[in-house]
Amino acid sequence: MERIKQISSWLKEKNISSAFIHSKENVFYLTGFYTEPHERLMGVFIFQDEEPFFVCPQMEAGQARAAGWAYEIIGYGDHQNPWELISSALQKRNSQCSKVAVEKETLALSRAEMLQAVTSGAELVSAEERLNQIRVIKDEKEISILREAAKLADYGVEAGAAALKEGIAEIDVVAKIEYELKKKGVQGMSFSTMVLFGEKSGQPHGNPGSRTLKPGDFVLFDLGVIIDGYCSDITRTLVYQNVSEKQKEIYDTVLQAETEALKMSKPGVRIGDLDLKARGIIEKAGYGDYFPHRLGHGLGISPHEYPSMSHNNDELLKQGMVYTIEPGIYVPEIGGVRIEDDVLVTADGAEALTKYPKELTVIS
Amino acid sequence: MERIKQISSWLKEKNISSAFIHSKENVFYLTGFYTEPHERLMGVFIFQDEEPFFVCPQMEAGQARAAGWAYEIIGYGDHQNPWELISSALQKRNSQCSKVAVEKETLALSRAEMLQAVTSGAELVSAEERLNQIRVIKDEKEISILREAAKLADYGVEAGAAALKEGIAEIDVVAKIEYELKKKGVQGMSFSTMVLFGEKSGQPHGNPGSRTLKPGDFVLFDLGVIIDGYCSDITRTLVYQNVSEKQKEIYDTVLQAETEALKMSKPGVRIGDLDLKARGIIEKAGYGDYFPHRLGHGLGISPHEYPSMSHNNDELLKQGMVYTIEPGIYVPEIGGVRIEDDVLVTADGAEALTKYPKELTVIS
Repeated sequence: MERIKQISSWLKEKNISSAFIHSKENVFYLTGFYTEPHERLMGVFIFQDEEPFFVCPQMEAGQARAAGWAYEIIGYGDHQNPWELISSALQKRNSQCSKVAVEKETLALSRAEMLQAVTSGAELVSAEERLNQIRVIKDEKEISILREAAKLADYGVEAGAAALKEGIAEIDVVAKIEYELKKKGVQGMSFSTMVLFGEKSGQPHGNPGSRTLKPGDFVLFDLGVIIDGYCSDITRTLVYQNVSEKQKEIYDTVLQAETEALKMSKPGVRIGDLDLKARGIIEKAGYGDYFPHRLGHGLGISPHEYPSMSHNNDELLKQGMVYTIEPGIYVPEIGGVRIEDDVLVTADGAEALTKYPKELTVIS
Repeated sequence: MERIKQISSWLKEKNISSAFIHSKENVFYLTGFYTEPHERLMGVFIFQDEEPFFVCPQMEAGQARAAGWAYEIIGYGDHQNPWELISSALQKRNSQCSKVAVEKETLALSRAEMLQAVTSGAELVSAEERLNQIRVIKDEKEISILREAAKLADYGVEAGAAALKEGIAEIDVVAKIEYELKKKGVQGMSFSTMVLFGEKSGQPHGNPGSRTLKPGDFVLFDLGVIIDGYCSDITRTLVYQNVSEKQKEIYDTVLQAETEALKMSKPGVRIGDLDLKARGIIEKAGYGDYFPHRLGHGLGISPHEYPSMSHNNDELLKQGMVYTIEPGIYVPEIGGVRIEDDVLVTADGAEALTKYPKELTVIS
């Protein structure tokens, strides 16, 4: 329960009475218990000195205990109001709740109102800043899981490439990738697996459908797996059978942008400069208008997490950070290329955890 | 844009200046555009008289237009602050925003604070009540999609049953089910597919893993698909090779509870009475303590939506409602049985959209 203690120390330091942490990702990070409570309330209350408690649906209480939560668990039935039980538990702790730290980015307004009601109108302040700073540095165990997740993402691309044949539909390739990954024991995908052919690869967030594969198509794979609560996220773009000069030019530009941003990654570098580096290369090649998104995002328990790899992020890279580098160029009609690695900042540089080859591959 | 007009009328009637609707489900319901914006802001602003506008990431704007949104679209880049653009758009409309309806159950506190900042501290009131009342009655097009989604859920159970053989692991059966459904064109599952064997079926929210199938095991399937933005959700429990008297007793009790609650379903019946009916049967058989959850939930764009099929729900069933009936009995060590149908309320009764057989099936 070292992570709970880190929060307690922060509460003391900032003179915040308590914290209510509700998101499934942060609950997992703090308690070791991962679940999707859907619309039901779940969360951990943490105090400066007093014992924390965990609130969850009664039917999950046993699993929370089994996952290692050593303190009080308040389980409630579907017909009980958990806020009444929370109110009693808070009163028992005799803790002043004048200021409560919450995840403002995700706490629903209705729950914020309930929380204020049971704390006599406490001021709600942001817990994210601190949680982000703790979670952004991955420890050895987390890195070893992320490494394994990245390896399985590589395998997903391999399975997808092996499934390509003329006339196959995008969704059939998605199905084969996910089937192969499930056979490897993967419990879920980090997000909806993306396989896009030809002009459809030109949509940064397109949906796989019945479009079938033709010679000369770009084939864009974007996928990731969840294992032991951690995510991977890889993108590779291949070409089917024959490749035009224009396609080569686009591909080479993205590849250069990606590898240069990767090379720059090491402790002390300004995060925004990675985006600027990649963006500069793409702009110089004349494709600046066709790269409409940021360079990447943090990666861990969530597929998109802190930090944002945007040009205006002034924070510095630190050892133990894990994030994606994923520049792309999307040209309507021709299609798009995106290349994405999961990157770990090491003591003096960085390592791409995803290792599927990046040179232009023409599937024949 | 009939549904937007329904919201405008409601705003007038309640004297609410505008509505900001942000959840992907309600955005889809109101605009026809379905997307997962992750941490990025998306939403529709609706007014009493003035023209609505849609805010989304710039790279999604084209797809929103293609999906049929006919009014203004405010697309923003990753480096822009969408709230500044929203502020200008609100000023242009010259609409007083003293009271704004929002989805309180899902609007994040940080966004509520931003919204209050651009509306000079508007009072935020709940939009859910109205949205729920509109969405709960499914129209013909929605029913026909839900019917198709239920048929595919039936097929998923069929595929799972066909995959059973001694020694197969739960996750391998999950993989086969999802592969077969993807081949049928299913774009995604409503939730993580559940296949649980033996004692593991005794966890109402268990996770499929490496547990392998043995003679005498219960086999619980809980799965659903998403098609055209709508979900299905079916549970069936089979037995592998041989069945004990105790297993038969549990199964028959759940089956009776399920079918009796289904038979009771028709317009005008109090929703809570369905739960009480099923619960009464299970209690009478001596298993009351082993049915720890409500009878079911509404079903549509979300796999769990309004209304909640709980004993304390005093609302009445209406024609066009679609919900699940899913009683269960979970006995540690022996395992659990749950039987779940998707139910449509008709003019004078109800129809189970899921049609996979419910009599006790022993796979040999």
